[in-house]
Amino acid sequence: MKIKLSQIQQPVRIELNEFHDKFKIYLKSEIKLVDYAIRFILSQKGKKIRPLLVLLAAKMSGEITERSYRGASLVELLHTATLVHDDVVDKAEKRRGLPSLNKIWGNKISVLVGDFLLSKGLMISVDNNDYDLLGTITNTVKRMSEGELLQIYKAKKMDIDESTYYKIISDKTASLISTCCEIGARSSTDDISKIEAFRNYGEYLGIAFQIQDDILDFVGETKVFGKIQGGDLKESKLTLPLIYALNNSSEDRRKAIKKNIKRGVTDENIKDIISFIKESGGIEYSQQVAQKYSDKAKECLTIFEDSDEKTSLINLVNFVVYRNK
Amino acid sequence: MKIKLSQIQQPVRIELNEFHDKFKIYLKSEIKLVDYAIRFILSQKGKKIRPLLVLLAAKMSGEITERSYRGASLVELLHTATLVHDDVVDKAEKRRGLPSLNKIWGNKISVLVGDFLLSKGLMISVDNNDYDLLGTITNTVKRMSEGELLQIYKAKKMDIDESTYYKIISDKTASLISTCCEIGARSSTDDISKIEAFRNYGEYLGIAFQIQDDILDFVGETKVFGKIQGGDLKESKLTLPLIYALNNSSEDRRKAIKKNIKRGVTDENIKDIISFIKESGGIEYSQQVAQKYSDKAKECLTIFEDSDEKTSLINLVNFVVYRNK
Repeated sequence: MKIKLSQIQQPVRIELNEFHDKFKIYLKSEIKLVDYAIRFILSQKGKKIRPLLVLLAAKMSGEITERSYRGASLVELLHTATLVHDDVVDKAEKRRGLPSLNKIWGNKISVLVGDFLLSKGLMISVDNNDYDLLGTITNTVKRMSEGELLQIYKAKKMDIDESTYYKIISDKTASLISTCCEIGARSSTDDISKIEAFRNYGEYLGIAFQIQDDILDFVGETKVFGKIQGGDLKESKLTLPLIYALNNSSEDRRKAIKKNIKRGVTDENIKDIISFIKESGGIEYSQQVAQKYSDKAKECLTIFEDSDEKTSLINLVNFVVYRNK
Repeated sequence: MKIKLSQIQQPVRIELNEFHDKFKIYLKSEIKLVDYAIRFILSQKGKKIRPLLVLLAAKMSGEITERSYRGASLVELLHTATLVHDDVVDKAEKRRGLPSLNKIWGNKISVLVGDFLLSKGLMISVDNNDYDLLGTITNTVKRMSEGELLQIYKAKKMDIDESTYYKIISDKTASLISTCCEIGARSSTDDISKIEAFRNYGEYLGIAFQIQDDILDFVGETKVFGKIQGGDLKESKLTLPLIYALNNSSEDRRKAIKKNIKRGVTDENIKDIISFIKESGGIEYSQQVAQKYSDKAKECLTIFEDSDEKTSLINLVNFVVYRNK
């Protein structure tokens, strides 16, 4: 059965609307250019998975409070800031179906708007003495940049093992997902075991999410997934399906494939590499690993009583791992 | 008499060396690529005015403590992060006489290293519960991006009055200088009148610094100042010398000059514009304003007893306003 995001959102539907209203107010700026840029960003509607996680975790741990909304705004601001910076460095022309901010306003404004969004997010915490949230999110910003830098470094060297791969995706992707869940829990409870459970749930969910993303990079249909096949490989990013394939092939085959990638991935040789991955079982293996992390994520929730929110968080795991875009 | 930076540094010479050692340790990273990038940044020796301000303010307010060194590291990290991001958006090829980070490592790594440096700085405060410093610095990051964005917006419209100019330079430049002085004072005293005095000293010093920078943009010798004449104008940034000149010329002349700038500033018409500014007294007026802010900065220090540190801070004001680079 295909799960819809709208079903997952159901238990916090009213609070999500409340969040949207508050978020807009937080984003207001006296500087007209900032206001224009922000209105433009708001028009690019994302899935808002991160605020959803904050609100579900908060409701499951107690009650949704003003602190929960501030936490949701903080993570969404940070996430938006990183997307704006990503689009600058990737020279992306589109974001969520609309032209990217850098395409319309140029790099300079985009980098500054990114910095502004990040600091605005942190200021929400400073102004409200949410120093625990501030510490958590700052550490996450650091881990995200470190994870991306480690990935680039390893890509340059074309040398990466499975455990380094997990470190990279934990830092660059899972850290923020985990932080969303932790912040949500912290906003409504002091119970360390609950906070810990949500932090781990988010970590495993984030890892499963990224592995699925990396699988789709090889086997996703461009029309559905929205990205071209082998996009990561064109940047020499080695991800799980290929790492497994390389580790489970003959020395000769491995050398030949690595040489191929180093020479530069083209639309022609990408098909060969994808066939190699499929034949070596790299896709199935990665699917199994994603499944294992999904199961671990769900297990973290066993300490909580059944509720609509819990059902949503379990469905969200399935939504992430069985998605095709 | 020409004041040398080394004389100004004298009262905190030992502590500045101590700072350098601590700063290097703070910057260490397990990620090799980050370590390379940081070693590269450290090799581009800057004037380190910001840590100097922290240490002088700290010593004058009491004793230099570990908190002072953390504050100095925090502001230097933030400053370095903004330089790295600036070089990306300006496509700068050089920084402090060496190739820029983006020139060597590319935009992607540079933006990420900038984000890393900023979060690393904030983490020093988080890890040590310096939440007051964290709040101050976060607000500064926000003001710096807002100031730059307001400047770009006004440049696009070619419409700026003197009071908007002061708001822009206060946000984009003076805010960090002021924060350095405030953080230094806060690291060694709880006396609000002292903290306030240093915050104001830094604000006025920062404004004087930026006005002098804007004067040098028109009359500085490229070889000495290191920047080409009229560089700001090429980005349609209207600064004090020109704002004054435009406000004190005939309607016809004003329209003609604005038209000239809008058409695009070239090496040829820049000479005409500079002549226009000089004839209208824009340079002298700006020098008078810079002098006024210098005097205000020095006045803030009258509540302190005489000391070597105080002499240094007074000399620093002169150093900033009488510099030619």
